[in-house]
Amino acid sequence: MGKNTLLYEGKAKRLFKTDDSNILRVEYLDQATALNGIRKDTVKGKAELNNEITVLIFEHLKKKGLQNHLIKIVSKHEQLVEALDIIPLEVVIRNVSAGSFAKRLEIPEGRPLAFPILEFYYKDDPLDDPFINDDHVKILEIATNQEIEFIKQKAHQINLILIDLFETIGIRLIDFKIEFGRRGDGTILLADEITPDTCRLWDKQTNEHLDKDVYRRNLGDIVPVYQEVLERLEQALH
Amino acid sequence: MGKNTLLYEGKAKRLFKTDDSNILRVEYLDQATALNGIRKDTVKGKAELNNEITVLIFEHLKKKGLQNHLIKIVSKHEQLVEALDIIPLEVVIRNVSAGSFAKRLEIPEGRPLAFPILEFYYKDDPLDDPFINDDHVKILEIATNQEIEFIKQKAHQINLILIDLFETIGIRLIDFKIEFGRRGDGTILLADEITPDTCRLWDKQTNEHLDKDVYRRNLGDIVPVYQEVLERLEQALH
Ligand SMILES: Nc1ncnc2c1ncn2[C@@H]1O[C@H](COP(=O)(O)OP(=O)(O)O)[C@@H](O)[C@H]1O
Ligand SMILES: Nc1ncnc2c1ncn2[C@@H]1O[C@H](COP(=O)(O)OP(=O)(O)O)[C@@H](O)[C@H]1O
Ligand SMILES: [Mg+2]
Ligand SMILES: [Mg+2]
Repeated sequence: MGKNTLLYEGKAKRLFKTDDSNILRVEYLDQATALNGIRKDTVKGKAELNNEITVLIFEHLKKKGLQNHLIKIVSKHEQLVEALDIIPLEVVIRNVSAGSFAKRLEIPEGRPLAFPILEFYYKDDPLDDPFINDDHVKILEIATNQEIEFIKQKAHQINLILIDLFETIGIRLIDFKIEFGRRGDGTILLADEITPDTCRLWDKQTNEHLDKDVYRRNLGDIVPVYQEVLERLEQALH
Repeated sequence: MGKNTLLYEGKAKRLFKTDDSNILRVEYLDQATALNGIRKDTVKGKAELNNEITVLIFEHLKKKGLQNHLIKIVSKHEQLVEALDIIPLEVVIRNVSAGSFAKRLEIPEGRPLAFPILEFYYKDDPLDDPFINDDHVKILEIATNQEIEFIKQKAHQINLILIDLFETIGIRLIDFKIEFGRRGDGTILLADEITPDTCRLWDKQTNEHLDKDVYRRNLGDIVPVYQEVLERLEQALH
């Protein structure tokens, strides 16, 4: 495979090889999906918004000492990242009850949780990303005990940084999903994206959804909503 | 409420008060259920079999130093137990892939697991006993961190004792579900039952199901199957 070979096409972005085998080019797509890809729509402008949002957030995390895969933005809808071996876990942190959590445990959506809770989902589309526990992570050989502890600690650290960041721009961080990857030497770092696709963000004043729930729940157009998040982040971070 | 008041009628047994507020009488029922009670049948003889099986197993556990609620058997289908405040957790240990675990993670039924894995389900019929993780146990205030560790340790200890016991009678312990309760002073001990209703037991030679899967999967009459388990236990333990 030469450079610029498409490595993988996901639901929100494409991964390409580059000259350097340690570096990937990520192209964000004008595409929104729900229900694990069953629902799918073209959304003009989403690629640029998510690319710019995730770059601002990953740069901020780096400034706060939190290592991650981001190298740099290279066009409105593209960025370079460290090529990692993705750990097939969706790591979810919840600060406030919402979504599947609210439904499964009948804890009303919007109720703050006494402490941030962490959940693992096995990133496996054919299995529909099942919710799993630490023993499952180990039996599936997804990660060792030590790695699980490291991932949990990092996820909670990221949560604290993100809560603060969103707080300064009038947004409550309800919950979010992150992914981690391994370098060749086994070190683990934050990868993938942090965008309104992967977070629940509620306006502090109005409780308005500023995230993909606008699409999932048919509440309107997501472009102005993601635009709003980007503009607030730009004001806070530039 | 006087003595002999019915306290609770569950899917497999009834709880009655006794003269002593610390002691309950448990009456086992000639009833089999599946799908969280949606399917329900009268099964003549099941009450006595399960009462006798669980008494043999709880006595054996006690002999091995494992505290539990059992006081004594008082009739073919009744036993006295310590009245406890049941912790609303179904604690599941799996030695071999089977059932919902096999389906959710596509690990073929019958495949031995590299180590015994533990799962918590929130015992709540309206919610359909959802699978939860340690953070959920804490956020729901079901148990503290320390209590969770204690319960896990006890469950694994029980597993080792049961594997050995069933091994001596030609049975593989595939998985099982247990419940724990709290005394007034906060100490936690094993409660409820350990029977072919709550374990998966496979004949070591033939792989035949010697448990409630015979009912769940319509493989035949469960009475001779439970009878077989009781007879083997009696031979080993008397
Ligand atoms: N640094 C990285 N190295 C390798 N793969 C990555 C990196 N960051 C993200 N990925 C992967 O890129 C893929 C494409 O992203 P996305 O379109 O969101 O996919 P999905 O549909 O699986 O969510 C995902 O499988 C994601 O795990
Ligand atoms: N020692 C005990 N003290 C109080 N309750 C108990 C004790 N042991 C078992 N129980 C409870 O007895 C109830 C009746 O049992 P069962 O018919 O199996 O109920 P279920 O339909 O909830 O499974 C259950 O709620 C169980 O938790
Ligand atoms: Mg994704
Ligand atoms: Mg029961």
